[in-house]
Amino acid sequence: MSSASDAGELLGSDAFIARLKAEGEKRYHDKHPFHVAMHAGKLSREQIQAWVRNRFYYQTRIPIKDAVILSKSEDSAFRRVWIHRITDHDGKQDGEGGIAQWLRLAHGVGLDLDEVKSLRAVLPGVRFACDAYVTLVRERPLVEAVASSLTEFFSPDIMARRIAAWETHYPWVEAETLAYFRGRVTRAKEDSREAIDYVLANAKTRAVQERCIDALITKTQILWALLDAVSIAHPLASS
Amino acid sequence: MSSASDAGELLGSDAFIARLKAEGEKRYHDKHPFHVAMHAGKLSREQIQAWVRNRFYYQTRIPIKDAVILSKSEDSAFRRVWIHRITDHDGKQDGEGGIAQWLRLAHGVGLDLDEVKSLRAVLPGVRFACDAYVTLVRERPLVEAVASSLTEFFSPDIMARRIAAWETHYPWVEAETLAYFRGRVTRAKEDSREAIDYVLANAKTRAVQERCIDALITKTQILWALLDAVSIAHPLASS
Repeated sequence: MSSASDAGELLGSDAFIARLKAEGEKRYHDKHPFHVAMHAGKLSREQIQAWVRNRFYYQTRIPIKDAVILSKSEDSAFRRVWIHRITDHDGKQDGEGGIAQWLRLAHGVGLDLDEVKSLRAVLPGVRFACDAYVTLVRERPLVEAVASSLTEFFSPDIMARRIAAWETHYPWVEAETLAYFRGRVTRAKEDSREAIDYVLANAKTRAVQERCIDALITKTQILWALLDAVSIAHPLASS
Repeated sequence: MSSASDAGELLGSDAFIARLKAEGEKRYHDKHPFHVAMHAGKLSREQIQAWVRNRFYYQTRIPIKDAVILSKSEDSAFRRVWIHRITDHDGKQDGEGGIAQWLRLAHGVGLDLDEVKSLRAVLPGVRFACDAYVTLVRERPLVEAVASSLTEFFSPDIMARRIAAWETHYPWVEAETLAYFRGRVTRAKEDSREAIDYVLANAKTRAVQERCIDALITKTQILWALLDAVSIAHPLASS
């Protein structure tokens, strides 16, 4: 397999997408032991709370990294497509949008919302990983920043499975507070289509294609490191 | 008058707004000789074209600097207020928004749109000044970045005068291509209200107030330098 340094020939669209999906899928955080335990119903209420509280920090970074992506584009047409991601998270008014939905989930799992919003109990390792995502999109070229979002290829599936798993295993969480997960099933499909269209149109050399793959891999590492930090602080019961 | 270094007591809202308006107004680019000549009907067609072509570069920086401002905010409520500035410039679809309106103006003054869009004839001094605006909002704290936008205090007036001046002095420019200026009259009023509300709420020490005033002054220098560069390349007739 080529690295960016010995780049080789441009991959065709199908081969490039296949590489992105293969490299992303095998590292996606649904394979992390903490995540496997979550979907298997093995997490305690306290572990679920820890995940929701810490993952909230990730959610708060999303509109920031998407605004950084907007600021890197010279093209009104691209920005017009991308900008809805910020509105999707912030909402059009107070109480709407992904961040507000995540806070309803936080309430649904029994967390204090002021504490969650203050971010003061976010684990250092979670903070470092999520901040690394903002740094990645700030420091890398636009096409690589966009490619890093392609974990959305995998999130519709994980969301659908998560809703089923939580309804089965954590009945103490009110079903209506799972709205964030429900919304992401369709939204992530559209988002990943927009992102892959841009990456296909703008990764014009094999070296750039490889750097896009690398950006996606780094993104999977960020999601993985988030779960590492949570699971070290809130260890899984030995089975 | 205090500088940021010997800051002194916090100014009350009225005194702070008065300082911002006074420092901004006396340096606003409507007093630049090139601008005075424009509104007095003294510019040639070629000078009008040069201004439109170069000022377009400024227009293209606006959504970029506003996306940088979005990316610096930790607050969904702030981002919800600010995000419309990007949509105002990019439009909701192709052909809409301030950038498209500016291109219609460029067409109206007889410029080739592909040349304008390519930015290749933008003067170096114009590029440096406009890029300095993006750098300012990137490098300074959010409240100062927001304060730098407060030249909008003065733009409704200048726009209203510009429309009258152009209709009188440059009848060869189709009136309907002046839509950008018309739209800014009301839009800039709302924008400056949003910005001043944020600055008043977030400049909590005299030192920060002084840095906000300094950011606004720097912004006036950026607009002034843009006209310097255009007028050096396209000198005014000696009167």
